[in-house]
Amino acid sequence: MREKVFRDPVHNFIHVNDPLILELIDTREFQRLRRIKQLGVANTVFHTAEHSRFSHSLGVYEVSRQIANHLERFASQTPGDGGWQVEERRVLLVAALLHDLGHGPYSHTFESIFKTNHEKFTQDIILNKTNEVHQVLMKYDEKLPAKVASVIAKTYDNKQVVALISSQIDADRMDYLLRDAYYSGATYGTFDLARIIHLMRPVVDGIAFEQKGMATVEDYIISRYQMYEQVYFHPVSRGIEVVLTHLLDRAMELYQDQQKKQISIDNFVTPDLKPLFEYSVSIEQYLDLDDASILENINLWRHSSDKVLAELSMRFLDRKPLKSIEISPKTRHYLSKIRPLIEEAGFNVKYYTAENDSFDTAYDLYHPEAKHAKTQIEMLQPDGSLAELSTQSSLVKALTGRSYGNARYFFPAEMLMEQTTGDLMAPVYQEFQKYVHNGALIGIYPRNSD
Amino acid sequence: MREKVFRDPVHNFIHVNDPLILELIDTREFQRLRRIKQLGVANTVFHTAEHSRFSHSLGVYEVSRQIANHLERFASQTPGDGGWQVEERRVLLVAALLHDLGHGPYSHTFESIFKTNHEKFTQDIILNKTNEVHQVLMKYDEKLPAKVASVIAKTYDNKQVVALISSQIDADRMDYLLRDAYYSGATYGTFDLARIIHLMRPVVDGIAFEQKGMATVEDYIISRYQMYEQVYFHPVSRGIEVVLTHLLDRAMELYQDQQKKQISIDNFVTPDLKPLFEYSVSIEQYLDLDDASILENINLWRHSSDKVLAELSMRFLDRKPLKSIEISPKTRHYLSKIRPLIEEAGFNVKYYTAENDSFDTAYDLYHPEAKHAKTQIEMLQPDGSLAELSTQSSLVKALTGRSYGNARYFFPAEMLMEQTTGDLMAPVYQEFQKYVHNGALIGIYPRNSD
Amino acid sequence: MREKVFRDPVHNFIHVNDPLILELIDTREFQRLRRIKQLGVANTVFHTAEHSRFSHSLGVYEVSRQIANHLERFASQTPGDGGWQVEERRVLLVAALLHDLGHGPYSHTFESIFKTNHEKFTQDIILNKTNEVHQVLMKYDEKLPAKVASVIAKTYDNKQVVALISSQIDADRMDYLLRDAYYSGATYGTFDLARIIHLMRPVVDGIAFEQKGMATVEDYIISRYQMYEQVYFHPVSRGIEVVLTHLLDRAMELYQDQQKKQISIDNFVTPDLKPLFEYSVSIEQYLDLDDASILENINLWRHSSDKVLAELSMRFLDRKPLKSIEISPKTRHYLSKIRPLIEEAGFNVKYYTAENDSFDTAYDLYHPEAKHAKTQIEMLQPDGSLAELSTQSSLVKALTGRSYGNARYFFPAEMLMEQTTGDLMAPVYQEFQKYVHNGALIGIYPRNSD
Amino acid sequence: MREKVFRDPVHNFIHVNDPLILELIDTREFQRLRRIKQLGVANTVFHTAEHSRFSHSLGVYEVSRQIANHLERFASQTPGDGGWQVEERRVLLVAALLHDLGHGPYSHTFESIFKTNHEKFTQDIILNKTNEVHQVLMKYDEKLPAKVASVIAKTYDNKQVVALISSQIDADRMDYLLRDAYYSGATYGTFDLARIIHLMRPVVDGIAFEQKGMATVEDYIISRYQMYEQVYFHPVSRGIEVVLTHLLDRAMELYQDQQKKQISIDNFVTPDLKPLFEYSVSIEQYLDLDDASILENINLWRHSSDKVLAELSMRFLDRKPLKSIEISPKTRHYLSKIRPLIEEAGFNVKYYTAENDSFDTAYDLYHPEAKHAKTQIEMLQPDGSLAELSTQSSLVKALTGRSYGNARYFFPAEMLMEQTTGDLMAPVYQEFQKYVHNGALIGIYPRNSD
Repeated sequence: MREKVFRDPVHNFIHVNDPLILELIDTREFQRLRRIKQLGVANTVFHTAEHSRFSHSLGVYEVSRQIANHLERFASQTPGDGGWQVEERRVLLVAALLHDLGHGPYSHTFESIFKTNHEKFTQDIILNKTNEVHQVLMKYDEKLPAKVASVIAKTYDNKQVVALISSQIDADRMDYLLRDAYYSGATYGTFDLARIIHLMRPVVDGIAFEQKGMATVEDYIISRYQMYEQVYFHPVSRGIEVVLTHLLDRAMELYQDQQKKQISIDNFVTPDLKPLFEYSVSIEQYLDLDDASILENINLWRHSSDKVLAELSMRFLDRKPLKSIEISPKTRHYLSKIRPLIEEAGFNVKYYTAENDSFDTAYDLYHPEAKHAKTQIEMLQPDGSLAELSTQSSLVKALTGRSYGNARYFFPAEMLMEQTTGDLMAPVYQEFQKYVHNGALIGIYPRNSD
Repeated sequence: MREKVFRDPVHNFIHVNDPLILELIDTREFQRLRRIKQLGVANTVFHTAEHSRFSHSLGVYEVSRQIANHLERFASQTPGDGGWQVEERRVLLVAALLHDLGHGPYSHTFESIFKTNHEKFTQDIILNKTNEVHQVLMKYDEKLPAKVASVIAKTYDNKQVVALISSQIDADRMDYLLRDAYYSGATYGTFDLARIIHLMRPVVDGIAFEQKGMATVEDYIISRYQMYEQVYFHPVSRGIEVVLTHLLDRAMELYQDQQKKQISIDNFVTPDLKPLFEYSVSIEQYLDLDDASILENINLWRHSSDKVLAELSMRFLDRKPLKSIEISPKTRHYLSKIRPLIEEAGFNVKYYTAENDSFDTAYDLYHPEAKHAKTQIEMLQPDGSLAELSTQSSLVKALTGRSYGNARYFFPAEMLMEQTTGDLMAPVYQEFQKYVHNGALIGIYPRNSD
Repeated sequence: MREKVFRDPVHNFIHVNDPLILELIDTREFQRLRRIKQLGVANTVFHTAEHSRFSHSLGVYEVSRQIANHLERFASQTPGDGGWQVEERRVLLVAALLHDLGHGPYSHTFESIFKTNHEKFTQDIILNKTNEVHQVLMKYDEKLPAKVASVIAKTYDNKQVVALISSQIDADRMDYLLRDAYYSGATYGTFDLARIIHLMRPVVDGIAFEQKGMATVEDYIISRYQMYEQVYFHPVSRGIEVVLTHLLDRAMELYQDQQKKQISIDNFVTPDLKPLFEYSVSIEQYLDLDDASILENINLWRHSSDKVLAELSMRFLDRKPLKSIEISPKTRHYLSKIRPLIEEAGFNVKYYTAENDSFDTAYDLYHPEAKHAKTQIEMLQPDGSLAELSTQSSLVKALTGRSYGNARYFFPAEMLMEQTTGDLMAPVYQEFQKYVHNGALIGIYPRNSD
Repeated sequence: MREKVFRDPVHNFIHVNDPLILELIDTREFQRLRRIKQLGVANTVFHTAEHSRFSHSLGVYEVSRQIANHLERFASQTPGDGGWQVEERRVLLVAALLHDLGHGPYSHTFESIFKTNHEKFTQDIILNKTNEVHQVLMKYDEKLPAKVASVIAKTYDNKQVVALISSQIDADRMDYLLRDAYYSGATYGTFDLARIIHLMRPVVDGIAFEQKGMATVEDYIISRYQMYEQVYFHPVSRGIEVVLTHLLDRAMELYQDQQKKQISIDNFVTPDLKPLFEYSVSIEQYLDLDDASILENINLWRHSSDKVLAELSMRFLDRKPLKSIEISPKTRHYLSKIRPLIEEAGFNVKYYTAENDSFDTAYDLYHPEAKHAKTQIEMLQPDGSLAELSTQSSLVKALTGRSYGNARYFFPAEMLMEQTTGDLMAPVYQEFQKYVHNGALIGIYPRNSD
């Protein structure tokens, strides 16, 4: 096969030498990912973060391809020596390419409203005989579908392959950090990918990193910290996501109400969305859905006779996020003081307020008892022994196990309006604003004139 | 007003100091541009070229802002001295921000099918009293709508402002070359923007560039040449655009047919598209349309009972572009030989073939008699005189007035299939392929074994 | 004056609008900085770190110029309001440009051997009437020499100016981190300079940073940490620096010995170095010295009749660094075991071994009692109050006050040679190597076969 | 052998896997290149262009290594098939590493004054038994010295290897264009190296480039054009080079004069320079010379009793270049008018004026009759045939065979001084300046007031 290259600004070029990969990219299921944004609503804050899951999936593939090329220099010689099994290359590359196949539009929100699970869909699409992806895999190797699905499920028996797809430094994260940084313009997300790959060494049951590359691993940890703190947890995109959640909630409520009343609902949602609203979406129906399916419905709902749905749709399309304040365990009880004020100002708190937590850890040790236990990062010493990352870096040691992020309370921007004489609600707004200082919820704060 | 900044990977940050600009960005009409891709279908070839007209519009604004800041050092002292009129800053910045406001989804194709004109819509939206953009402009200065609309129409009396928005080096092109290069990964599109701005000097009726910056201007000319040659004229995205054009053609035909037959067409297109299919779209209706409006209809048409519409929709969504060959005046007459072969292979040539020309000039002199006369680029000499660019650069001289690009003929990829025994159409394909060599249409070519 | 620009890859362009600056750059004293490497011997490890103090000095000037432009938006309105005094611009820019004027070749080593002080020389050159720099300053403003010298001495009464030249985030550090990163290829040294400047706000007695820019300040702190850990403290360049120190020590010893014996020393060192060897260098003589003065003498000493001097010169020129191991308070006492082994192997420990400590703190609070008290970094809150950096960033909090770096013991690489039969010293090397494990000094280590 | 990596900002990392390469880098002869600037005096214009021949040599090695890795995919299967001979890898890499070994300090000027030849010295060092480089090569393969020397001499029988070291696109040029661009900040020198390598295909007697990569090859051609036009031909660094040439001329004249008069010249030049001044330098003596040898002598000559030598040394060290004007065949005869004016102003035209031509061609066809015939660039077509570059690119076609550059006349900057009353020479300067307009020599020009 003649090599095929895709230009990609994150990796310069994405190289495809295996015809199987090219055929997978050309399937209907994979092409659908072009029409699903990687970061959902984040482009309402980082206006250029408009890239798709298609780009990210190609990127994870390319990272894995480079890793596989590198690991071939450390191929296993005798069973159990911890060397790389070169025959796992294809499983690794295919799993990397397909790992996000089951994502729906605005995945986070979508799954909570329509009770779907993208990891489950990914595995189902790979295993289901009617899908092109499955058929292409079978054409090349009948064992591939089951193997690839088990990598996605983290149950595959080669732990190196699993670690390269899901761990604290894996191909998925490395691509998304670099890609989201590139597209959002958040330059702190960058680190030296070529160098990290160069430092990788296969070890029994995992992947370690050469000690001499400490600075590069530190850079990756810090990049990840900063991308979460600055981009993924951004309060304004969370404020738009709350609007999206509430408008889909409202649409679901209306749908179920109309069904109960046996009103014809032909024109309320486009046909492709109906199975979702009935919690009975098949794989085939699921694969018809993309961002446009949701967006076009919101476009149409702008003219809905239901005022709440129409108003929330307008807020979403015209980018009017809910505002928010940080809450702490100490200040949470003040919410009971401000909620009535929001009601009093005329807002239904069910649709116009929300609480939302976002927390993460920059790096953590392996805690086998944890629900989602993280595999720790091991540094390979000159004498061949392994040392856990935080024992080797004073920077990482300082961060290990510390959680960061915040809990926020969302409410209409109107509550923060400056009071103008003649506005009936002015006294309510004024009362509300007494609870807010430097973006956080506080007790009644004796404001000085500034 | 506290300055507001938007992170932007092309310009690092976009700075807004004028509250008028911020209010314009927050209008419904401007926010719509988030949902329209800058490059239409180009992301089917450059998979990461997924950026929106919103990003580009902010970018053109930022370039103009930097230019305005720079030009203030060369402010007019006495009327007619060719200096910069500092009071034109706002007109320049607003025109830059709003210049693409009237674009529809997949603009090129859209305009040819639905007979709309984006420049006309841009001016109308700015001048129309019911639009938020108009209202915001009026709030700040009642003369702004007319002034800004006339800059877009190139009839504004300050020729420097017009040149900065539309000329061979203007803020629009400078942003789109850099942005399209950044998002597509086509690195040859880059040039030194900060330096070009630094070289700008206002002169009577236009903008000149300091002679010492010749290399930077050359770089810009070459970048533009390469972006057209490599990205904008790419045969594969033209092959997808042909599919899109043909499927909308087909939908229009069906729509008109159903109307004639007085069949109810409620479910054939979503309600927001109907005015388009009836050639009677109002500004208000136009502003409801975005990429999702078109895409979701194509999603639904995939299941159309009309086989042609369903099949073309599938080709578009699953990325099956028409293939193409280059044609020259000498070889065009061979088309009459190969068209019947395509028909014979079972394709309706109306929907499955097309001719398409793309030509451009890297740089041209001012030809006042030309339909769209280009203003030439002038280099400011140390003694204050002007010299036209190509007289100063042996590189540009070599390119001036030379057109490049090509004419292509598009047809189904099936025609290039390798012949497998048992395929009924094999002899037809074989006959067709005799007319094709190294991607170009030729006379019957005596193929050697290679 | 027509603006003059210097191309500079770190800042793209360095802009000079003040003729005073241009005249200072053209002085003999400033041009000398072209011939002095910024990082001394570091290019023996980072082979491309070959940039000069001239480039760095222009860079610090440019950073200051951008800061001054930015601060003008926050000009003082009434005395004591903490605003920027726009009339300090020139003092700031000149101090930035000239701050390193008194550096000698291989400054660190040079000062310890020849007992000079570059900060003292910087101030003297500025204040001394016979120097071109002084004369140029006087031509423009007779108070400038004293003002600029007091900024260098940190005694100037405008504390904002002092902070911009010497503090935990100053123009000097910002340029050298970016520049050293650019030239060494150590990419972890980068941070967003334009953004940091944009975040600066003048406050009473100093400079604060807007709270919203936390991520950028964090990035700067981490960059600084990594540049020290990875570049400035690199054990191999310290191993070359030890060779340089010892060879100059040896030359000094020989010089003094010859003087004592009243032997003619005309040809032992070139004439420009003699005042140094006699501890009596005048400003005028000092300004004749550059890297070539030292290097050419080492070139000539390669053929010295003194074997130690010749051998060390060869090691320096041909890059044969001393090797090193890390020592801790716990392991230091083992040095008494290994020193005799080095002697036994035939090396004079005075010239072939050394101890060397390098420690730093990524960020520290203000400790007024400390010898070199650091001014802490203050973040400006939305309500105008100041908050010390580590109270606002969990990342910085984790690093505050923690020191990092190490103490090392240097010795000839020969001691680590693999033992070959027939080598007389093999048993000595073998004994020595028992004290070394993973690059650190240890007690006798029971080595397992690996 | 464990892989050794060197950080390098141009190639990110330089990878060494062959112990031979590492031993060659560690030789005395190769380490000397650290002390010789790649671009001689160019840093007097591009102040950051301070990189060494050592860095460039490592870079050419790395480019060759990447090429060799790539070409292995196109290994020769049968003799004469045009495939890559994998066993040539070592010869290619060693020739790349060592190709500049024989350069002296300020090579251009040096060779013209001291009548040496760096290509001859490169070959001699490789072939001479007493050199470390030779000894290391012999240790690995006794045929290597002769093979590598013949690659340098372009007589090696594998024409692919020769083309990769010396042709219109070779590893040497690709590294120096990128490196000089990186270090000078002249961004127009960049092109996509990884892509160019990826496009390379071995063909009988040379290297071709895949047709699909046309844009990348065009970019390279333009980069090369711009680096010559903007950097290498810069009139100001030529103005410093003229000073260096004239001061070494003067030193030579004094040296020969003193020899004739049998005056002792012990202190006139440092001992290492004497063989040069006697035109009798041995390889061993040559290898003692570096930039410091020349620079330190100029430092000392600043205090020479010969006024011309002292004054030119001061001009060189303190960067006072000669100024210049462009001359054309039409205007050259005016030189006879202005030379006497320079004499009249008190300057010895022998030391204070010069003519200097710099011309180049961006790309040229193969002209077998030419003195230094260039191998043309061939593009590999999809059907396997070759097509010469300019037949495939309208951009290159426009440039092919066109020469650019200029001839200049150099003279003291004083001649351009503004006339101040009381200056005795004012009328002479005024007369001189009548011959100069926009940086070019002209006939008497009727100057209008501007």
